[in-house]
Amino acid sequence: MGSHIKCSSMPSLLKYFFVISKSTIFTQPWNGIIDCYQTYLPITNKTPIVTLNEGNTPLVFASHISKLCGVPGLSVYLKVEGANPTGSFKDRGMTVAISKAVEEKSQAIICASTGNTSASAAAYAARARANGFKMECFVLVPKGYVALGKLSQAMIYGAKVIQVKGNFDEALKLVKEIVSKYPVTLVNSLNPFRIEGQKTAAFEVCEQLGRSPDILSIPVGNAGNITAYWKGFCEYIKEDKPRMIGFEASGAAPIVQNKIIEKPETIATAIRIGNPASWKQAVQASKDSGGFIDVVTDEEIIESYKILHQMEGVACEPASAASVAGLIKSAKAKKIAPESTVVCVLTGNGLKDPDSAIKYAGTAEHEVEADIDKIAKILGF
Amino acid sequence: MGSHIKCSSMPSLLKYFFVISKSTIFTQPWNGIIDCYQTYLPITNKTPIVTLNEGNTPLVFASHISKLCGVPGLSVYLKVEGANPTGSFKDRGMTVAISKAVEEKSQAIICASTGNTSASAAAYAARARANGFKMECFVLVPKGYVALGKLSQAMIYGAKVIQVKGNFDEALKLVKEIVSKYPVTLVNSLNPFRIEGQKTAAFEVCEQLGRSPDILSIPVGNAGNITAYWKGFCEYIKEDKPRMIGFEASGAAPIVQNKIIEKPETIATAIRIGNPASWKQAVQASKDSGGFIDVVTDEEIIESYKILHQMEGVACEPASAASVAGLIKSAKAKKIAPESTVVCVLTGNGLKDPDSAIKYAGTAEHEVEADIDKIAKILGF
Repeated sequence: MGSHIKCSSMPSLLKYFFVISKSTIFTQPWNGIIDCYQTYLPITNKTPIVTLNEGNTPLVFASHISKLCGVPGLSVYLKVEGANPTGSFKDRGMTVAISKAVEEKSQAIICASTGNTSASAAAYAARARANGFKMECFVLVPKGYVALGKLSQAMIYGAKVIQVKGNFDEALKLVKEIVSKYPVTLVNSLNPFRIEGQKTAAFEVCEQLGRSPDILSIPVGNAGNITAYWKGFCEYIKEDKPRMIGFEASGAAPIVQNKIIEKPETIATAIRIGNPASWKQAVQASKDSGGFIDVVTDEEIIESYKILHQMEGVACEPASAASVAGLIKSAKAKKIAPESTVVCVLTGNGLKDPDSAIKYAGTAEHEVEADIDKIAKILGF
Repeated sequence: MGSHIKCSSMPSLLKYFFVISKSTIFTQPWNGIIDCYQTYLPITNKTPIVTLNEGNTPLVFASHISKLCGVPGLSVYLKVEGANPTGSFKDRGMTVAISKAVEEKSQAIICASTGNTSASAAAYAARARANGFKMECFVLVPKGYVALGKLSQAMIYGAKVIQVKGNFDEALKLVKEIVSKYPVTLVNSLNPFRIEGQKTAAFEVCEQLGRSPDILSIPVGNAGNITAYWKGFCEYIKEDKPRMIGFEASGAAPIVQNKIIEKPETIATAIRIGNPASWKQAVQASKDSGGFIDVVTDEEIIESYKILHQMEGVACEPASAASVAGLIKSAKAKKIAPESTVVCVLTGNGLKDPDSAIKYAGTAEHEVEADIDKIAKILGF
C-alpha cells in the first residue's frame, strides 16, 4: 500500500491523541462514514450531513471457515454489515444520498424496493426530519410480492408505503416516471451517491486488516455493492488490490448466464434479481481485479448460513451467506491460493429474516414436564 | 473526571498512532470489550477470550427529543445497544461469562430465558466452538409463553431449546437445580460475570461523550443493567457521576410498587418481569446516585417508540423506548435540570420485534393500480 493513503480522519485522531496524553481518556469518536471519509466523497462544506453513525462495522475472524476451506494458511474474515443502523450495508450509501438530497433542497425521496433499501431510505428521511429538514419518504412495492413483515421497518420509520398492482419492474418504472415529473428524489441504486457511500466499506476493510485483503468475496444481486467495493479499493490503494469474487444465486444468475432472468427464484430474497442495475460495472470489476462471478445453489447458501451461525456465532440474512458459500465452492475448485487473506461480506442482519432462521435451524424442539430427571436426560446428563 | 482514568487500550492506541505516522493509515482496531477493558474485568492471561467484537456501539445525538423535552439547553444522546452482535446489550456480559466458563473447563451452559439472553448465550457458545472448545448451549423456555419467532435466534445459533410445561419461574428453578447437580454453567444474570461485562457500556458512554453524562436513563426489567451501569461509572470516574434514572413498565413495576408482581403485563416484553434478580442493587444505584426509579405506561412507551423511529430515525425494540418515555415524563415533572446532558440506553435492536413495528407504525397502507396519476395523487403531488 502506498504512503499516499490518508484517511480524512487523521487530523481528528491526532486531536484525540493529544486529549489522551493530557487526560488519559481513550475517546472513540465515530460520527459516520461522511465524517471519516469526507475527502473521498462528493461532500462540500455546504452539505448538511444526515447520519445515523453508520459504518465502522466489525471485521470478525472466522477460524472455523478458515480451516473448513482446506486451503493451507487461509485466513477468512467476515465484514459484518448487519451492524449498521437499519441492519444492512445500504446505510452507507443512504447517508450520502439523503445528505445530498437535503443539500439540493429536496423535500421528498422515493424508491421501489421491498427490503433493505426501503428500510434505510425511511430511516434517513426520519433523520433528516430530526435535523430540522422537511423530508418525506415514499416506498412503492409490488402487491402480493412482499410479506408484511419485510415492510415493518419502512412503516415504523414513517415512510408512506404504496402497494402497486404489478410486479417489481413496473413499480421501478413508475418510480422513474414520478421522479421525472415531480419534485422528488430517486434513492434507488441508480442514484450515484449510493455507490459513493457504499465504497467506504472497502476503506474500512483495509484499515481494520492493516492491509488490503487478497480476495474480497461478496453476494451479487443488483450488483451495486461489488461495484462499490471495487471503486473503493481502486481509490484507496495503488497496488495489491484484492481479487473480487462475486456470487449470484443459481436461480437468479443473469450475469453468469449472460441474460436477463424474467422470473428469478432463490431463497436468498435480497439477491433475487433478474436484471441488475450495475451489471456492466460488476463484470468490469471482476475482470479488472482478476476475479470472477460465479453461482451458488440455494443448498450451498443454506449450508453456509448454518455454518456461520452455529460454528462461528455470527448472524446474517440468507443472501449474505452467498459470499461464504462461494468461497467454500471456490476453495474446493482450487481457485483460492494458499496463504490468502479473504474478506467475506455479510450484507444484512440475521434478524431481517427470522422465518429463515427457524426454517433452517435444524434443531429439534423438545417439550417436557417440569421434571428435572426428564430434562437432564434430554440434555444428555 | 480525574486524571487517574486510564483505559487499558491506551497502549494499543499508541501503537496504532505510530503506525499511522509511518504509513498514514487510520486503523480502527476493535476486538471487543474484553480486549479494550481487560484491566477492569476478572480476566487473566489464562482466560481464553471468546468474543464477537461486541461493544463500541454508537452514541447518537437526539436533536428532536432534546427539544421535545422542553428543558432549556438539554442534550439527549442515545446509546444504541441493538448494534451488538446478537442485537442487544446482553452480548457485553455474555463475552465475559462464556470466556470464564471456557477457562473453567465448562463444556455446557444453560439459561432460562425467552428472549435476548438466550440469543446471546447461543451465539457465544457457537463462538467458543469456533475457537476449538467443546461448548453446548441449553435454553429452557416456558411452553406456550413464547412465540416461535422469539426463539429463532437461539435455534439457528444451534442451542438445544427445551419447552418446559410450566411458567418462567419454574423454568428458572429447574435451571438452578440442573446447575447444582450437573456439569453445566448458569449464564442467567445470577452469573456475576454478566454484570461485569455489562458495566463496560458506562465506560464507552464516558469516552464517547468525552465526559460523564449528568443523567443516565435506562429501562428496568430484571434490573441487572442499571446495576451494571452504576458499577461501571463508580469504577471509572471519581466525581461527577451521573444520576441514574430507571423506568419500569407500569404493569410490571415490582420495585416502584415495592412488591413482587405475580402476573406482570406490558407490551414491552423484555422488561415484563415481576421479581427482578438485581432488585436491591437497582434501588441502591438510584439512591446512591441521587436518581430514582419510576414507571411509564405502555402508551408512553409506544409514543416514545414511534418518536424514536419517525423523528430521530433510530430503531429499538419497544422495551428500550422506556428510557426515552421516562425522560420525557421526568422533564414534564420538572425533574430534569436545564443544561443537562442525558444518555438514554436503547437496549435492543428494532428488528427483534417486527410485529410491534407493524402494529404501532400508524401508517395507512395504500393499494393502487400501476397508474402514475393515481399514485401521484396519493403522494400529494
